[in-house]
Amino acid sequence: MNIAIIGLGKMGGNMARRLARGGAKVFGFDLSAETRAKLAADEPNFQGFDSVAKLVASLPKPRVVWLMLPAGEISENTFAELKTLLAQGDLVVDGANAMYKDSQRHAAELAESGLKFVDAGVSGGVWGLANGYTIMLGGEKDAIAQVERFVKLLAPAPDRGWIHCGPAGSGHYTKMVHNGIEYGMMQAFAEGFALLKAKEDFNLDIAEISEVWRHGSVIRSWLLDLIAGTLAEDTDLAGLAAFVPDSGEGRWTVLESIELGVPTPVITQALFSRFSSRGNDDFAMKLLSMMRNAFGGHAVAKQ
Amino acid sequence: MNIAIIGLGKMGGNMARRLARGGAKVFGFDLSAETRAKLAADEPNFQGFDSVAKLVASLPKPRVVWLMLPAGEISENTFAELKTLLAQGDLVVDGANAMYKDSQRHAAELAESGLKFVDAGVSGGVWGLANGYTIMLGGEKDAIAQVERFVKLLAPAPDRGWIHCGPAGSGHYTKMVHNGIEYGMMQAFAEGFALLKAKEDFNLDIAEISEVWRHGSVIRSWLLDLIAGTLAEDTDLAGLAAFVPDSGEGRWTVLESIELGVPTPVITQALFSRFSSRGNDDFAMKLLSMMRNAFGGHAVAKQ
Amino acid sequence: MNIAIIGLGKMGGNMARRLARGGAKVFGFDLSAETRAKLAADEPNFQGFDSVAKLVASLPKPRVVWLMLPAGEISENTFAELKTLLAQGDLVVDGANAMYKDSQRHAAELAESGLKFVDAGVSGGVWGLANGYTIMLGGEKDAIAQVERFVKLLAPAPDRGWIHCGPAGSGHYTKMVHNGIEYGMMQAFAEGFALLKAKEDFNLDIAEISEVWRHGSVIRSWLLDLIAGTLAEDTDLAGLAAFVPDSGEGRWTVLESIELGVPTPVITQALFSRFSSRGNDDFAMKLLSMMRNAFGGHAVAKQ
Amino acid sequence: MNIAIIGLGKMGGNMARRLARGGAKVFGFDLSAETRAKLAADEPNFQGFDSVAKLVASLPKPRVVWLMLPAGEISENTFAELKTLLAQGDLVVDGANAMYKDSQRHAAELAESGLKFVDAGVSGGVWGLANGYTIMLGGEKDAIAQVERFVKLLAPAPDRGWIHCGPAGSGHYTKMVHNGIEYGMMQAFAEGFALLKAKEDFNLDIAEISEVWRHGSVIRSWLLDLIAGTLAEDTDLAGLAAFVPDSGEGRWTVLESIELGVPTPVITQALFSRFSSRGNDDFAMKLLSMMRNAFGGHAVAKQ
Repeated sequence: MNIAIIGLGKMGGNMARRLARGGAKVFGFDLSAETRAKLAADEPNFQGFDSVAKLVASLPKPRVVWLMLPAGEISENTFAELKTLLAQGDLVVDGANAMYKDSQRHAAELAESGLKFVDAGVSGGVWGLANGYTIMLGGEKDAIAQVERFVKLLAPAPDRGWIHCGPAGSGHYTKMVHNGIEYGMMQAFAEGFALLKAKEDFNLDIAEISEVWRHGSVIRSWLLDLIAGTLAEDTDLAGLAAFVPDSGEGRWTVLESIELGVPTPVITQALFSRFSSRGNDDFAMKLLSMMRNAFGGHAVAKQ
Repeated sequence: MNIAIIGLGKMGGNMARRLARGGAKVFGFDLSAETRAKLAADEPNFQGFDSVAKLVASLPKPRVVWLMLPAGEISENTFAELKTLLAQGDLVVDGANAMYKDSQRHAAELAESGLKFVDAGVSGGVWGLANGYTIMLGGEKDAIAQVERFVKLLAPAPDRGWIHCGPAGSGHYTKMVHNGIEYGMMQAFAEGFALLKAKEDFNLDIAEISEVWRHGSVIRSWLLDLIAGTLAEDTDLAGLAAFVPDSGEGRWTVLESIELGVPTPVITQALFSRFSSRGNDDFAMKLLSMMRNAFGGHAVAKQ
Repeated sequence: MNIAIIGLGKMGGNMARRLARGGAKVFGFDLSAETRAKLAADEPNFQGFDSVAKLVASLPKPRVVWLMLPAGEISENTFAELKTLLAQGDLVVDGANAMYKDSQRHAAELAESGLKFVDAGVSGGVWGLANGYTIMLGGEKDAIAQVERFVKLLAPAPDRGWIHCGPAGSGHYTKMVHNGIEYGMMQAFAEGFALLKAKEDFNLDIAEISEVWRHGSVIRSWLLDLIAGTLAEDTDLAGLAAFVPDSGEGRWTVLESIELGVPTPVITQALFSRFSSRGNDDFAMKLLSMMRNAFGGHAVAKQ
Repeated sequence: MNIAIIGLGKMGGNMARRLARGGAKVFGFDLSAETRAKLAADEPNFQGFDSVAKLVASLPKPRVVWLMLPAGEISENTFAELKTLLAQGDLVVDGANAMYKDSQRHAAELAESGLKFVDAGVSGGVWGLANGYTIMLGGEKDAIAQVERFVKLLAPAPDRGWIHCGPAGSGHYTKMVHNGIEYGMMQAFAEGFALLKAKEDFNLDIAEISEVWRHGSVIRSWLLDLIAGTLAEDTDLAGLAAFVPDSGEGRWTVLESIELGVPTPVITQALFSRFSSRGNDDFAMKLLSMMRNAFGGHAVAKQ
């Protein structure tokens, strides 16, 4: 029961641990020697390699190589390298967040070399090591069969929390939609707590309210659990900047909604709020300020 | 341990049952004799009355009268009647959804007659009877103390799921925000499942996906549990109309966000989607169609 | 042909000038002696007063008193004062931006004292002195007849650019909707120019583009004329802050759309963008940042 | 002064007329013999051809071939055909709406065959024949120089209403943004008039109001002129369906805003409103209805 994990960051590293603790023999690659050493020290079933080529050479056939790399150049280069290293019957899983159309392309490209492909959307964040990960798989049936035993270790339980969604790309598509929903839910909570905070004359204890909502309310959820956990320690968030990055998933969801012609006002506004938090609407706002001055003589704020 | 419940509909009726089962003696009023009879038949601790006056006359002092009436005329009339029937030291709880400013007014009006007031936001829906209700209270400390033992019966557990938020109005304010968040979450899920459904070439099983997301994913939540439960029986929703009512809570949340100057794009768009589902944007869309024809000669669709 | 103007700011002052130049005898009040003196020096038909009482005492009956005061306390106080100073048959015009429900109330309150009321929505900004103002009137027919000759002087031409919309309040309602549309148009232009600016590899000359769009394009408009005029002098807007105030009109439009159940996604988002530009979404964004850290271990930006 | 126009529909046909009337000799191709015959009958300077090959064979070198074809297959096929028919020094203009990245690709592909390319964004709709068209050009300087004399005939005046924006693609990019702004403006007007209509107790005459707003108001614009023109004939729009198509331009604008990370809430909501008008949010709305039933026991509307 051997598996390779390429990329041992926050997600990949914990997945390697969960697999190793579940009994799989894990062959891991990461650029960081420190990361490899730490995993090897902690997990008897883990063995680190300082190159993908060495890892592949050691991994018994038929090989399962699970990628946990950021979408883009690094990921593309590794796909290219694996095509030269792997042999017929081997299988590549892309378990990172990737645009589903790229996964469809990867499936086709690998198939040309007789290699199998599975795209795996993985949810669970830093809590997945303890709780297990939700896993959404796309690919051919025989490919899914080849990775199933590993997926059962990663999932919260062997018989639940994972699914074969459909053909290649459908796993990442489903994960993309999951994250789109997540964007909307997060923004809904953020707006609600902002309204509680802004009603100053009520002097509401938002930490206590978040805790109470966890019990019996319609909006109880894991996100609310996390909110309650952190607000319990800090209700002012005074040290944080109002600056929110976005990863690709939210953008891909909106692009897809445009392509399908399905309106997603909430998911899209959640994304746009993040754009604005980073000052990306500054020029538009300056223009508004200028227009107000031009037609109404309204004073403009200067920088 | 006596309490009156005025209004024994979906929410009030179940709350009366939960209180009665918890050991309270419940004095209930509802216009429907059938509703009263059914409750009396089921719950030994429940006694029905066919007028508010008779109920108040029977209820031992100091009285606690808990209203579960729709906001508006019925509720206002009952407040007015209670002012004439109750005596100093008695207490009225408004446990229905009400605009928090109305609750502030009710508190002031009742205080003029020496009556106490508590506004109670209650969440939990039809599942509250079994699971308990989340309860958000606003009012003076002594008033809260007077209702606490009943609240502990209604909550999921005596020591959790309820909170004294602050002064009169703050309970309904907190409930209003809770429901605003609920609007956003519901719309986020609806958009996501619509994207899954619309991607026809993947032929995704949205029932299975909703079930899988319940285990380990970032978006796991009680709403998702409900979605999975219903999709398991029907994934096409073919019999349903794309027509979604809104109750006051979503509107009040947006009005408040305007008053506070706090942007709530997601909650507001969730509300607007419901407006549109009911055809309330039809005239605007006809105008767009007309404009397109006027400048571009584009054909217009006729009714 | 006598008329009083109370409030001689950017709008009121220029309206007084236009009326005076049109031949009306203008009785003006403003708190600023300098403002009064400047107008008196420039306009032979203008006479300034240092109190409303003195002004009313000098104004021949039946009096027409046109208010150009900010909505709220100042305006309310002046209405109250005028009720004590004016006589049956006199007429008050509220030409400032006011919530139409307040105008309905003012109409009713003045009627109790036998005074007439007209609400006048006035558009045109600082350019109205030269170009004339669009005027939207609400009130009884005889009241409108009493102010018509002044309105014809203020409008771009006696026979166009003004309208009797309907009963009291309808003038301000129509003006409110006008400004709501204005919010949406301004934001549409701001977003578009932001997209031109952000496409750095094309190095587009947004000043020239705005000028070209003025000739023959579908989006040609007075707002575009203003944009082109200012961009011609400064395309970077480097000195401006991305901070946009909002006056009441945008908010009132959204409140009304909620009350009517008519979705206004564009007008509302235009308003919310201004809220965000002033940092009013900062707490929500901090919460998002916190959540991302809690579930994904994502680094948070610190202030 | 010879030019070919391929595609003689609403836009291309009128442009051919305006060029012919301006003195250019126009070589036109369209699949419809009737269209060709009508143009030839009306315009002495117009000559129709029943194949692109024949047209190209007749057109003197260096040739200018201006395409007015729908984006997609027809357009792509024609580009491919022209590559085989044209000779070094010839030039292709794409004057239809096209995604700017496609225009960048077309420029590169034509350059491989020694052919020049200009992308021309054209605005003006059916009124362009009389008023002239706004034209936004992208391409190399020498290519622009080669088409300039034709552009001057198409523009409202030789020296205004047209611009060389930048490199290939920038003309269509600028036109795309123009149309994005148009989406936002149209929706802003639609929402505003819907609010006027919905306020039934004021019984507002929206035709008269639209006419009045044309004179002196901040929102005066060509779109408002068109609205007033059509509302003058029909204020109920009773015969129209609330069903609004969208062409590619709005979608492309939103895709670009996602790619650039620049929020465009108004343009995007304008697009989503059109999606919803066509029932594309029906499944999402059914899900909301189902959820409300599941947690609140709310009745669902059946189809």
